[in-house]
Amino acid sequence: MNIGKLIKDEVLAQQAYPTEDKKCRIKLDANESPYGLPAPLQERLFARMQGTALNRYPDAGAPSLRRRYGALCGVDEDWVMTGNGSDELIQILCAALARPGARILIPTPTFVMYRIIGLNYGLGVTEVRLDDAFDLDPAAMLEKIAAESPALIFLSYPNSPTGNCFSEDRIRAIIEASAGVVVVDEAYFNFSGKTLLPLLKQYDNLVILRTLSKVGYAALRIGFLLGAPDLLHELNKVRLPYNMNAISQAAAGFFMDEQQAFSELIDRIIEERKNLLDALQDIDGVYPCPSAANFIFFSCTLNVNHVYEQLLRKGILIKPFIFPWSSRQFIRATVGSREENEAFIEELKRVIAK
Amino acid sequence: MNIGKLIKDEVLAQQAYPTEDKKCRIKLDANESPYGLPAPLQERLFARMQGTALNRYPDAGAPSLRRRYGALCGVDEDWVMTGNGSDELIQILCAALARPGARILIPTPTFVMYRIIGLNYGLGVTEVRLDDAFDLDPAAMLEKIAAESPALIFLSYPNSPTGNCFSEDRIRAIIEASAGVVVVDEAYFNFSGKTLLPLLKQYDNLVILRTLSKVGYAALRIGFLLGAPDLLHELNKVRLPYNMNAISQAAAGFFMDEQQAFSELIDRIIEERKNLLDALQDIDGVYPCPSAANFIFFSCTLNVNHVYEQLLRKGILIKPFIFPWSSRQFIRATVGSREENEAFIEELKRVIAK
Repeated sequence: MNIGKLIKDEVLAQQAYPTEDKKCRIKLDANESPYGLPAPLQERLFARMQGTALNRYPDAGAPSLRRRYGALCGVDEDWVMTGNGSDELIQILCAALARPGARILIPTPTFVMYRIIGLNYGLGVTEVRLDDAFDLDPAAMLEKIAAESPALIFLSYPNSPTGNCFSEDRIRAIIEASAGVVVVDEAYFNFSGKTLLPLLKQYDNLVILRTLSKVGYAALRIGFLLGAPDLLHELNKVRLPYNMNAISQAAAGFFMDEQQAFSELIDRIIEERKNLLDALQDIDGVYPCPSAANFIFFSCTLNVNHVYEQLLRKGILIKPFIFPWSSRQFIRATVGSREENEAFIEELKRVIAK
Repeated sequence: MNIGKLIKDEVLAQQAYPTEDKKCRIKLDANESPYGLPAPLQERLFARMQGTALNRYPDAGAPSLRRRYGALCGVDEDWVMTGNGSDELIQILCAALARPGARILIPTPTFVMYRIIGLNYGLGVTEVRLDDAFDLDPAAMLEKIAAESPALIFLSYPNSPTGNCFSEDRIRAIIEASAGVVVVDEAYFNFSGKTLLPLLKQYDNLVILRTLSKVGYAALRIGFLLGAPDLLHELNKVRLPYNMNAISQAAAGFFMDEQQAFSELIDRIIEERKNLLDALQDIDGVYPCPSAANFIFFSCTLNVNHVYEQLLRKGILIKPFIFPWSSRQFIRATVGSREENEAFIEELKRVIAK
């Protein structure tokens, strides 16, 4: 079998998404919540899960979950689609919109899966550098929109890895200029308190992504897509019928029943983010960016791969970033628990002082 | 937004996979196991699930599960890929092999998702009718292979909806004639006892699919793909990194620990299949096909949509099939529990006698 003649060129040419399987005691690389559920909540959750019939297929399209999530967002269920993580929803968008010659437009740096998935599904990918404040460069974005009429634009809000929310007026200008779909990925919105949901019914080309991965459910792969029913009707043809398993559907329902308890965990992360930012600001040679997410992006005068290695030796995992277009090097560190953050700061100081 | 200009033509042109959400008391339409786990087993399973950290992403690529499933099949872990149901594995195969002009070849009738997913991902679909015994038509298949050199051929073994295993010598001839990947979908192999696994290392273009959906885990979406490491290396670039959630990974491990208990449930289904077949054979106007799966396919002298409606009124759900190329109409009924099958037979007799 000649694999090179069978596999798409775009797939052959690229690397898989890099995942870490390094052993560590403090995991600050993947923007997970540091908190498991309190024991009584965890027990109630598993009791709920036990109510699902494992031998039966899950509810196709998760209608009851869509109804409830829609109600939470002020839209009917036909404005909501569920996914096996928002990764799958990005994949469905790319697959459905991959007409011959179609392109996606993304700012850079941003979440790398937009590019990887776009390429896998045959879309051309255009990247436009963020400005010096990591905000969108509106002139450059609008120029590309006019020149290439991208089928899809992905905007992470707040943006990973930089942690800031782009200016809303720049996003609106992009939505208004675009004949394609503009996807605002609000994976971290629980930590920013900011959402473009109020614009959803104003712009029929606006799609919003949400996930429960950052608020304590990363293991369960639960994503939501919000958008106009006409578009979702087409996307649903690409969605696999039983894409969200029954246990995750049950757990998502539980999340909505117990929002207060989850909110308390989110508030603790927001509080620790402040402490972590203060501590980073106090370290010479470390320059943290303000963050509206559950991680902090900072530049560092040392080689970040060296910092990464030194921290890993102490069992602390962070994510280094080196960009070909910048002389500055960066690290993204998830906001952990207070103890985790303190241990991280202490080791970081030690590495920097050496 | 002009959706017709943004969505791919192939997606616009097709319907979504039809799923039933009809209320019923006896569900014989989806080839699920009728049996929940025995209570002590169920308790141990949920205890296992409770061991997963819900706030952490699942193990990317499920390495430990791949190692264990590979050992079960006599191959190393790099011969194994896991999916969110085998649907997702079919989707990954189609996406990765969708070079411009690429086609898939399938016999008909067969599992409809091959066609739906193939079209969604831009592959042309060629269908070749099965022969009168629902076996492969080797001359017609080989002719299409020579003419079109399909990138993918899907063979369901045993075949859904017909229930038989195709002749192994015909499958081998197809594998040997094909420059593309031949996917043998063994979703129902637990009920046939037949597998092409011994051929896996002989043919580098052979891929085998497995699932736990038919043996009691439909809710959990657990699929396996077995194939040559060089091919899996490319497919893994298309697979989303966290495609199988952590709870399902834990449950799949539990399945492998408790194979004896699951085998007993499978044996009960095989026993009830015999009883159901005997009972169907005794009904005038009903002509069941022999089955190597957990369902029975039978033709019926009545209009099958009428039979479907009449059974549904009594709370019994089956799946009718009307083919444009056949004057015979068919029904596929899952093998349920003894009580379910008896109730189904009784109502079917009543409908037929009217």
